[in-house]
Amino acid sequence: MRNITRREIAEASTSQLKQICEEIRDEIFSTVSTCGGHLSSNLGIVELTVALHRVFDFPHDKIVFDVGHQCYPHKLLSGRAELFSTLRKAGGLSGFPKRAESEYDCYDTGHAGTALSAALGIAKARDLKEEDFNVIALIGDGSFNNGLIFEALNSIRILGVNVLIILNDNGMSISPTVGGTHEVLSEMKTGSAPIEDVRLFERFGLCYMGVYNGNDLNELLPALNEAKTRLKKESVLLHVTTKKGQGYPFCEHEPLETHGVSPKSKKPCKEYSSALGEELTALATKDKRVVAVTAAMTDSLGLRGFFDTYPERAFDVGICEEHASVLCAALASHGMKPYYAIYSTFLQRAFDEIIHDVCGQNLPVTFCIDRAGITGADGETHQGVFDLSYLSFIPNLTIAIPKDIGEFRAILQQSVSFNHPLAIRYPREGVESIPKNVEFGKFEVLHSTMSNIILFAAGERCLTIAENVRSRAQKEGFDFSIVNTRFLRPLDDKLLSERKEKYVVTLEDNVLIGGLGDAINRFYLNSGKVIRNFGYRDEFIPHGEVSSLSAEYGLNEDEIFACIKEFYARG
Amino acid sequence: MRNITRREIAEASTSQLKQICEEIRDEIFSTVSTCGGHLSSNLGIVELTVALHRVFDFPHDKIVFDVGHQCYPHKLLSGRAELFSTLRKAGGLSGFPKRAESEYDCYDTGHAGTALSAALGIAKARDLKEEDFNVIALIGDGSFNNGLIFEALNSIRILGVNVLIILNDNGMSISPTVGGTHEVLSEMKTGSAPIEDVRLFERFGLCYMGVYNGNDLNELLPALNEAKTRLKKESVLLHVTTKKGQGYPFCEHEPLETHGVSPKSKKPCKEYSSALGEELTALATKDKRVVAVTAAMTDSLGLRGFFDTYPERAFDVGICEEHASVLCAALASHGMKPYYAIYSTFLQRAFDEIIHDVCGQNLPVTFCIDRAGITGADGETHQGVFDLSYLSFIPNLTIAIPKDIGEFRAILQQSVSFNHPLAIRYPREGVESIPKNVEFGKFEVLHSTMSNIILFAAGERCLTIAENVRSRAQKEGFDFSIVNTRFLRPLDDKLLSERKEKYVVTLEDNVLIGGLGDAINRFYLNSGKVIRNFGYRDEFIPHGEVSSLSAEYGLNEDEIFACIKEFYARG
Repeated sequence: MRNITRREIAEASTSQLKQICEEIRDEIFSTVSTCGGHLSSNLGIVELTVALHRVFDFPHDKIVFDVGHQCYPHKLLSGRAELFSTLRKAGGLSGFPKRAESEYDCYDTGHAGTALSAALGIAKARDLKEEDFNVIALIGDGSFNNGLIFEALNSIRILGVNVLIILNDNGMSISPTVGGTHEVLSEMKTGSAPIEDVRLFERFGLCYMGVYNGNDLNELLPALNEAKTRLKKESVLLHVTTKKGQGYPFCEHEPLETHGVSPKSKKPCKEYSSALGEELTALATKDKRVVAVTAAMTDSLGLRGFFDTYPERAFDVGICEEHASVLCAALASHGMKPYYAIYSTFLQRAFDEIIHDVCGQNLPVTFCIDRAGITGADGETHQGVFDLSYLSFIPNLTIAIPKDIGEFRAILQQSVSFNHPLAIRYPREGVESIPKNVEFGKFEVLHSTMSNIILFAAGERCLTIAENVRSRAQKEGFDFSIVNTRFLRPLDDKLLSERKEKYVVTLEDNVLIGGLGDAINRFYLNSGKVIRNFGYRDEFIPHGEVSSLSAEYGLNEDEIFACIKEFYARG
Repeated sequence: MRNITRREIAEASTSQLKQICEEIRDEIFSTVSTCGGHLSSNLGIVELTVALHRVFDFPHDKIVFDVGHQCYPHKLLSGRAELFSTLRKAGGLSGFPKRAESEYDCYDTGHAGTALSAALGIAKARDLKEEDFNVIALIGDGSFNNGLIFEALNSIRILGVNVLIILNDNGMSISPTVGGTHEVLSEMKTGSAPIEDVRLFERFGLCYMGVYNGNDLNELLPALNEAKTRLKKESVLLHVTTKKGQGYPFCEHEPLETHGVSPKSKKPCKEYSSALGEELTALATKDKRVVAVTAAMTDSLGLRGFFDTYPERAFDVGICEEHASVLCAALASHGMKPYYAIYSTFLQRAFDEIIHDVCGQNLPVTFCIDRAGITGADGETHQGVFDLSYLSFIPNLTIAIPKDIGEFRAILQQSVSFNHPLAIRYPREGVESIPKNVEFGKFEVLHSTMSNIILFAAGERCLTIAENVRSRAQKEGFDFSIVNTRFLRPLDDKLLSERKEKYVVTLEDNVLIGGLGDAINRFYLNSGKVIRNFGYRDEFIPHGEVSSLSAEYGLNEDEIFACIKEFYARG
């Protein structure tokens, strides 16, 4: 798409602005259909972004996008239109705001709920430095459930700075927005809220303006201008409604389906999430204690079927990862068997509650950690490469890393009678197999050879690499043993003690520090074994294609093969 | 104190109940004065607890104490009065609710904001199991700022369960309560809130009752009875005001001073927090970019002087650890130099934000992590023994572990010109020394000997142990080298490579998994060195006295001495 200049936006008539909106919408639709990415949220926010660029002076003024996946129109209006076809590709534009990418991106986001805290910090820095610009936080209604937003709202009076909060209310998180906050906002939208509800925001130091149609420039432009004027003397909450998927009837009707879109070329594959849904539903049929909890991601975690079949035992609590964790601990403390399904990167939000509530009380909560390892196109903020490290040291926790979907099913089936905290981490996609009984804490020797080399690999991606390397080795006339290292906690001490191989290789789809390699190193300390760990190096991993990122950042088949070949040569 | 039976509470006249309140108050005052513990919050809540035990049927009914340090009167009324003199002592009663201690404690707490999520989970389990009891969450107004509470409030309608929330409003966290929520609550207390503010809670599915004097049984008993009746058909928020320190004029006037009390016998010592306050104030004088942020713990972190001297650059955001972290990131992203002071255990709450906001953007935020290592009498929920593990793998982060207060000062002084994320972790108490220049990422060799043994120790507690062990060794005619391992990230690769000792010992005041030992093991992998790691084993560490817990859970001077002696014997 052509670059649209600030001047063009500044001088355009409203009908020309509408034309620009259509150009942007077409560009997003065609690019995302090809490259994959976030579709319906970006289609919904086109008019609002164009209006913001008309009324405010970026990059002098600052805008923080909460979550950030709705920043495509902003990218198209800030000198990045010609690069837009590189979206989410290695070396191309990120699907999220990145300070390193453009001065128009003032703060990096990816996880929900950070935008208001960030805007307040930027505004405070501005005031302390006696600078003069406007600071805007653009926040979806889904994020408004998040505790961080509330903590930041509480701070507005403490910090005494003026910011513009735009509440982009489309009634959706990735799942439909739920809960008490949603009730409050809904009443405002329908006009059934008492005026005093509106004044609630004043207690927090905010002037409330709303509700405006965020897909209508004729409403938006005067509202934004008024907000800009008010902002000189107070903080403003501007409540706008937008339609997720606006302009594309299919997207409007299927905002869930078109929230995140996969690239066209992508071949369909089996997802662990489907297995999760199937197994949990089956478990719930047999065992009344089984409940499922999710933080606004019912569908992408595979739980739609469970929610439909057992709605009374299925809880989507909104984007509230911490609360979900405590809720699970409490359910478990009084006899239920909770399964908390969540992406690896988002579970970071519940870190303290895993320690303090679940493991501190040694309660039988099962964390189903999806999208573990490198996840690819979403980049730094969405890679699931830290979970083994941040879980590895928590007392009372068992950590399982199934080798494939069949083993995942087996672990889930057996988890029902396991009375302690359990974390199961798995990637998005995998291969089915017949579920076989898994003894918790026991590894599985997949290939035991006479060679002096043994490879410990955790999880499907690493075991696939291990098998590939073994095929190459066999072609060159040597071999090595492979162990499905399916528990990081506890380690299989017996097996580790019994194996006599001198050369040890570890593979993990996680950063090297604090993960499986460190655990094996610790076990074999002073054993005289020669060890080499493969995993991701000590860097944030940007967006790109999963297998090339994996190879580039530390799980490189050639290097692993070379290492083993060298071990073979050394005997 | 004598045990007071449920029957006695049930049958007492109001004046007899008041007499019981006085007994409880006297017992708490005398025991806490001797044993140490939380004083003023427990004095404030005596009448409320007695009234709860009169109106509700514990342990059949369930009560969750948010934070939990205000549970002393509850302990005295639930069969633990005769054990109360063991409070916070090793093997004695915990200062917090513990399921393992009594069936009257239904859920363990310690960190702020978990009680409502926990109560909802317990109530949901009750309803699913078709049981019949009341669930109460007792929450201080300080916790009401916390994001977790808001996330749980949002869930009341989703979960559809009835719980009683008692808002114990004493206007205090550890520091005075601040922010927008406080404004709302204050208006309610003074009666200046419009009735519609009160109705706000109805949007979240709560019936609001208030405001009652929580130190007056004549008000409390009918209010609790009414709440209990309403609870049959809806959730209730009962707003009571209490006076922190009630009944003891000095405590009433000095709620900050008497929030946490040290045992009588404790000799005064130098605290790192004083040095933090002095150095940050001096830095702020020289450098206008310096700002200080705390989450409701200004005094205990040593920042009162800074707040008084530079109020415009000092921010207490309430018990909002996550928000504080994002706020710091944003301040740093626009030219400020934020110092975020916090206890090690509470920083767990900001884990995702350290990764996502601070280190992901490589911003110069300095985390001043107080109460690192074993902290003692507060027990499992307050030990600071995980921070090295949960920080060790975060890209872009530098982790400093000063050897004493002088080195802490030096690192702080130099941090001003350090343009990356920095974590400094230190215990409560220490020894002063003359600050000397510290090169970031460089260890300090304290004793270099001709022996074949080298000891890497991180932080003051471990270096003190190291020196003690060395004195013993010298008496027995052998010696070893000692390195002040003052950076976990980056390691001092050059020094580590150059040291030729065959035997390596590591000491850290942290769990063994994922900390310094693992990092040294990784560095020396395949080096042929013989290594032994000392640190805390894989368990939650209960309350007790710091040095005995430390010895019992993994840092045992005798064992360390024996290990080194054995290395010496092996040559």
